[in-house]
Amino acid sequence: MPANYQFPHRDLLGIEGLSERDISGILDLAESYIALNRKQDKKQNLLSGRTLINLFFESSTRTRTSFELAGLRLGADVINMQVSGSAIEKGETLLDTAATLNAMHPDFITVRHPESGAVMLLSQKVNCPVINAGDGSHEHPTQALLDALTIRTKGRKFKGLKVAICGDIKHSRVARSNIYLLTTMGADVRVIAPPTLMPPYIEKLGVTAYTDMRKGIEDVDVIMMLRLQLERMSASYLPSIREYFRLYGLNPEKLQLAKEDALIMHPGPINRGVEIGSEVADDIQRSVILDQVELGVAVRQAVLALLG
Amino acid sequence: MPANYQFPHRDLLGIEGLSERDISGILDLAESYIALNRKQDKKQNLLSGRTLINLFFESSTRTRTSFELAGLRLGADVINMQVSGSAIEKGETLLDTAATLNAMHPDFITVRHPESGAVMLLSQKVNCPVINAGDGSHEHPTQALLDALTIRTKGRKFKGLKVAICGDIKHSRVARSNIYLLTTMGADVRVIAPPTLMPPYIEKLGVTAYTDMRKGIEDVDVIMMLRLQLERMSASYLPSIREYFRLYGLNPEKLQLAKEDALIMHPGPINRGVEIGSEVADDIQRSVILDQVELGVAVRQAVLALLG
Amino acid sequence: MPANYQFPHRDLLGIEGLSERDISGILDLAESYIALNRKQDKKQNLLSGRTLINLFFESSTRTRTSFELAGLRLGADVINMQVSGSAIEKGETLLDTAATLNAMHPDFITVRHPESGAVMLLSQKVNCPVINAGDGSHEHPTQALLDALTIRTKGRKFKGLKVAICGDIKHSRVARSNIYLLTTMGADVRVIAPPTLMPPYIEKLGVTAYTDMRKGIEDVDVIMMLRLQLERMSASYLPSIREYFRLYGLNPEKLQLAKEDALIMHPGPINRGVEIGSEVADDIQRSVILDQVELGVAVRQAVLALLG
Repeated sequence: MPANYQFPHRDLLGIEGLSERDISGILDLAESYIALNRKQDKKQNLLSGRTLINLFFESSTRTRTSFELAGLRLGADVINMQVSGSAIEKGETLLDTAATLNAMHPDFITVRHPESGAVMLLSQKVNCPVINAGDGSHEHPTQALLDALTIRTKGRKFKGLKVAICGDIKHSRVARSNIYLLTTMGADVRVIAPPTLMPPYIEKLGVTAYTDMRKGIEDVDVIMMLRLQLERMSASYLPSIREYFRLYGLNPEKLQLAKEDALIMHPGPINRGVEIGSEVADDIQRSVILDQVELGVAVRQAVLALLG
Repeated sequence: MPANYQFPHRDLLGIEGLSERDISGILDLAESYIALNRKQDKKQNLLSGRTLINLFFESSTRTRTSFELAGLRLGADVINMQVSGSAIEKGETLLDTAATLNAMHPDFITVRHPESGAVMLLSQKVNCPVINAGDGSHEHPTQALLDALTIRTKGRKFKGLKVAICGDIKHSRVARSNIYLLTTMGADVRVIAPPTLMPPYIEKLGVTAYTDMRKGIEDVDVIMMLRLQLERMSASYLPSIREYFRLYGLNPEKLQLAKEDALIMHPGPINRGVEIGSEVADDIQRSVILDQVELGVAVRQAVLALLG
Repeated sequence: MPANYQFPHRDLLGIEGLSERDISGILDLAESYIALNRKQDKKQNLLSGRTLINLFFESSTRTRTSFELAGLRLGADVINMQVSGSAIEKGETLLDTAATLNAMHPDFITVRHPESGAVMLLSQKVNCPVINAGDGSHEHPTQALLDALTIRTKGRKFKGLKVAICGDIKHSRVARSNIYLLTTMGADVRVIAPPTLMPPYIEKLGVTAYTDMRKGIEDVDVIMMLRLQLERMSASYLPSIREYFRLYGLNPEKLQLAKEDALIMHPGPINRGVEIGSEVADDIQRSVILDQVELGVAVRQAVLALLG
């Protein structure tokens, strides 16, 4: 556990701008929480008497529950606020919502929002640390951190690690946060997407772009599959699910092109038969999808502890 | 309170398969929680540091609240997950949801699901005790246990007790769990339903079937009325509410055929004027409907304590 | 802090009927919680082991969260029950819901309901203190108390204080509770509304009615703007939003008619450009809208503490 690492920012709005030392500091502390979560008595009192508000403008049971568990297990009181049935529906602006919550003296606010940049905007109106739980197609920093922690606990070093991120790169906050994190840590990052879902500027982020998955996946150490939002079909980005799976879905045949011990990752929830086949998703030798979920709680505990 | 009874199963998926000793063991422990819930300070720390997840694929405020109170009062952290706005809506399979939750290291999961068997399926993918909070038309074991505790606290003995269960036997998990429990404890169980709502095989469960309520109710010690799902009307199982109430609703006139001190039970929420008349539901001498609600919390505390 | 004030009622159903001493007693105690909420460790154990149920038949994130924080910070377990997905939707009556909840031995129930009088009705079926969190167009007592606390912490005395309440007086529980409170405390209360939204009997409550906002606001110490429910437009109470804002919206020009140091209040969430202009709502010299939110938690803590 890190002796005296201090996180130098008030908020965690994204991975962009974090240093290698910041990322390692979070991961080091997170490691210590893995064991705690496996115990019967998972409770610490580090944050007792503090208030964490989970403010979700999009529903996400998985992420909200992960933050809720992280807060409760550190002793905080946790309040969940879903957009449905809230003041936002009555026409209150984002900034009024922020100022209102702030007046109740929360100690942490996690925010998920469908618009890129909304979380940063909100953070400017409050006095407590804000954690971005996913904003539009911008960033989802705790996802990238839990992915990194998973890679690290599997004994891989980031320096020179070959990682392929595959799927809807254009709209994916998970991809963006992972690109920032992995390139900062010295990994060799490739992104794979159909031409319609590949942003034109992407190589400026220090990655190599592939539209042919078979080429992109060759010899990689880690494969991160992205969830395909099915609404991309109706928006004419893609011809059909069958076609998508054939070209960009991970199956045993394509997997053979990667290193033999390549890790298979996915932020979940998975679409079986869309971006990933069941033989691959359930391959207990190589799929670390459930490790990601487990370590997600530990990473969020570390973030709360460091910002608290 | 039981000195050293140990529940021999990891989960509570149903009453079927429980022994008389298991049922008595749960009821004995539950009795000790009744007094706790009547105190001002209702808190114990038996489960402190543990996590209970209430995973409800159907909404049921009453049952969810009862489990939530049971968990909180024993000191656990409680997380509520409703299907609405969750990953399940995004197309995640039940088993993926189970594996995902499991990775977060809950200590207990209660599950309500509209499909019979779904809870057992889910339990096979997780490492912690699972409590069936109602699955399809299969079982609702804590309901039968709280019904039994109510009968017992009213001073009735199960051996030879005449119990009539009346209503939509075909679709009722409450009926099924009660049939298993009461026959195991030696009661004499009758089921009463219109021919369209009576399953053909039902007598194989050791009960006597009646389609004439007046005959079925004769001389019984306990009358358990079932909630009529109003959608049965549109599905043509029944001609009309008025007709149903005339033939199968409990009113003072039919009640006279039962024993003078017969207990009136209902799992709630009640449909006044559909399956039960208000004079009967509100009869403070004989209706124990609110006792059932009260003892429901105690039963759930006992179940959590025994599985913990 | 008050040495030994005892609140003489079991419930807080409204401000009507409270004495000047009751109101001061609540405000005095609430003052002591303001500092607690500004600390890092906001937790007391005054209500530990007790259960607070927030029963909301209308959604209101702001009020529900405020009560939830108040309960949690005093150490209580808090259960949220929203009407959606609840037994009420299955046709259970209000009184059956009340009796059911009561059987679970809550120690406090807060209730929000769209019908005037529903909270009192419910309170008659339960054994614990009930707090009205807003019922129809009847009362919203904690809102009036937090408004009063805000006025007091800004150094104003109630005796002779000129307060104008402006907006949809006819349908506003906030207006009604404030009228009762402020007249009891000796303030000089004016109500301002369009003729269609002014109840005919209103002057019997001891206030002066104005349909001309410019006259009503003249020389006042406090301006309380009410939220305009936009559905009033479609119900033909009002010609248009633009017209409403021109005649009854608070803007810098109308504000000049009030005292120079007049406080601007609003129960939130605000409709910018409908009942209040942004220059006024965000005027950090005079707008105390966020103070109201902050003190709302303190007032609710005081109410729970006094009823507990």
